[in-house]
Amino acid sequence: MSWFEVPAGAPFGTAELPYGIFSTDETPRRVGVAVGDRVLDLAAVGEAAGLDADVFRQPSLNPWMGLGPAAWAEGRGLLQSLLADESGRDVVEPHLLPLDAVTLHLPIEVADYVDFYASEHHAANVGAIFRPGGPPLTPNWKHQPIGYHGRAGTVVPTGTPVVRPNGQRKAPDEDAPTFGPSRRLDIEAELGFVVGVGSPQGTSVGVDAFADHVFGVVLLNDWSARDLQAWEYVPLGPFLGKSFATSISAWVLPLAALEPARRPLPRQDPPLLPYLQGDLYGYAIEVEVWLNGLLVSTCPYAALYYSPAQMVAHLTSNGASLRTGDLLGSGTISGPAPDQRGSLLELTWNGSRPLLLDGEERTFLADGDEVVLRGRAPAADGGILALGAVTGVIEPAPAR
Amino acid sequence: MSWFEVPAGAPFGTAELPYGIFSTDETPRRVGVAVGDRVLDLAAVGEAAGLDADVFRQPSLNPWMGLGPAAWAEGRGLLQSLLADESGRDVVEPHLLPLDAVTLHLPIEVADYVDFYASEHHAANVGAIFRPGGPPLTPNWKHQPIGYHGRAGTVVPTGTPVVRPNGQRKAPDEDAPTFGPSRRLDIEAELGFVVGVGSPQGTSVGVDAFADHVFGVVLLNDWSARDLQAWEYVPLGPFLGKSFATSISAWVLPLAALEPARRPLPRQDPPLLPYLQGDLYGYAIEVEVWLNGLLVSTCPYAALYYSPAQMVAHLTSNGASLRTGDLLGSGTISGPAPDQRGSLLELTWNGSRPLLLDGEERTFLADGDEVVLRGRAPAADGGILALGAVTGVIEPAPAR
Repeated sequence: MSWFEVPAGAPFGTAELPYGIFSTDETPRRVGVAVGDRVLDLAAVGEAAGLDADVFRQPSLNPWMGLGPAAWAEGRGLLQSLLADESGRDVVEPHLLPLDAVTLHLPIEVADYVDFYASEHHAANVGAIFRPGGPPLTPNWKHQPIGYHGRAGTVVPTGTPVVRPNGQRKAPDEDAPTFGPSRRLDIEAELGFVVGVGSPQGTSVGVDAFADHVFGVVLLNDWSARDLQAWEYVPLGPFLGKSFATSISAWVLPLAALEPARRPLPRQDPPLLPYLQGDLYGYAIEVEVWLNGLLVSTCPYAALYYSPAQMVAHLTSNGASLRTGDLLGSGTISGPAPDQRGSLLELTWNGSRPLLLDGEERTFLADGDEVVLRGRAPAADGGILALGAVTGVIEPAPAR
Repeated sequence: MSWFEVPAGAPFGTAELPYGIFSTDETPRRVGVAVGDRVLDLAAVGEAAGLDADVFRQPSLNPWMGLGPAAWAEGRGLLQSLLADESGRDVVEPHLLPLDAVTLHLPIEVADYVDFYASEHHAANVGAIFRPGGPPLTPNWKHQPIGYHGRAGTVVPTGTPVVRPNGQRKAPDEDAPTFGPSRRLDIEAELGFVVGVGSPQGTSVGVDAFADHVFGVVLLNDWSARDLQAWEYVPLGPFLGKSFATSISAWVLPLAALEPARRPLPRQDPPLLPYLQGDLYGYAIEVEVWLNGLLVSTCPYAALYYSPAQMVAHLTSNGASLRTGDLLGSGTISGPAPDQRGSLLELTWNGSRPLLLDGEERTFLADGDEVVLRGRAPAADGGILALGAVTGVIEPAPAR
């Protein structure tokens, strides 16, 4: 119960309380929390209450995220009681701005960006498409959450146009590669886990310490140029096929909000090595993929083989440090059903089975296409939690 | 000619003028230039000259590197004239500190770290070792400088101990992986090119714009756990086998100092796509690998197939932005001769041909081993330019 009335059609309710960075003509970038269709200016609330609100008067969430779980819990608890109690109304209401009156920015300063490959259905689909006749999974896949580093400097917030990349591509029947606009531009529907508290180099973070380090979750679209990727990725992995842009939501949903959405993992067999075992869980988050206003897929995060805690434990098992602002992608979220696949590569089986969208056959992305990812999870009261959306429109490749 | 007398055995002369970050008990981290066996405190010199020296009173070179080529040339020119003219002595001398009286730090704030694979001899050796009987190079190798993203957060300065990583490894004759200390810990002798001036997302940096963006060069040791890497790298490339530590020199040698060391590239055949063609050159830099005080290899950078300008052009050809502080590794530098190989993997042919070091057979790194990389290049006067060394001692893996 809250004195705050959530209008119909508002992007959030009062249970999410996600953090982001906003600005207006009058105020430079600072930390806000979304409530219904409003943004609460945390620095202004803090000042009015006579608190030191410096950590909210910053152009990224990193300083706030770096404070750690006790501060996160205290902040969220305070917000919840201000929204619950009628006495909070006078404190909060003067500092609520309409969401459509502010500009939203990249919420975090990305330290390192690592993308995992944690969906068995996705990995098996990709294996079947690219290595037909062979085993769908590589021998290592069921022993460790496979991942690789992506480009942190090209992570952009929702709404940023995505320029179609130029690059080298060579079809198997061509003698030599050519250079030009990617012909197989794709999406990858993912979650991104954001690290708040770092860890020292030379140490590792156990599976059970996940919530001591990870602050929250964003939706993530890992744009992929399949033709560039196919030609370049042996032997060192994806590079230019991915590095041109990665879009994330403007809002970071704190892990605490997702407690009601915790779910057991699918069975992991063969058993994992001890450093990947512990109190393991996933989340009942569904990610919808919308293309030009039409729903093409609904991707169940709960179907993923590896938990985010296992991603963190694996990443640090060699002593690699974590830093505030590290972004860990789940990898494409695909479920068992054909309409639960998180990439056009899988949805169209590498272009061989076009989607019928509003009467039109579609395979990979065309210039002008708009992709929107939306996420939702169960809330404690039987309601629904929303994640911030990620949108991107494809712009034509630059002339060369 | 200079009034500054370089003592015998000093790590630098007066031609390098490399930039680094130092501190003393009295002064926090700030920018210094190495001259002979001294560090020149640039902020102090600037202040004494009544200039705005704020860019040198910073804990990393990034603000200085971000100013661009005109500022770099002006700064270097001013230093050169202060050292050449007797009148400069009174300006400079009070602000020279003994190198052994200061603490050196990571010179740059690393934005993204990309590691290339630009040595044909290295790539062919690795191919012959891991894919015997097959073609030594993958089909893409002679068409593009292959690269991948490494972990920026674990780049450390020379002198930082390197903790042996734990991790999953599985020999071909084992049924399942085990977890424990890497048994095949290796080095990779490389150069690292440091970006000063960034570029906007959605645009590319041509081969001929290299010197507008790249500030200078460091020596780089890309520590590698071959057993972890072998088990994990298919299909997404190296991850934990590399991400535990990458060491760089404390000193960044400006590109301008390397003008006398420019050399033509080896012939590139088949011809490359137009975006990789232009005024191409490499550098006659030799990197020595020392293991426990014994020279084991001398690696010729001039033998590399791809130029650093081609690395930058390829990296940005898909519209990926550059940022101040981006670090671009050359990949292991190996020449045609057996004693020109930049990794123990190649020097011992995957452990099958041990090195005889001081009467002892050695393959991969043991705990307590000290590895030192030293670099040198020809100077204008027929003398030698030194690059800053990179040292690291192996510490035992943490207990689990």
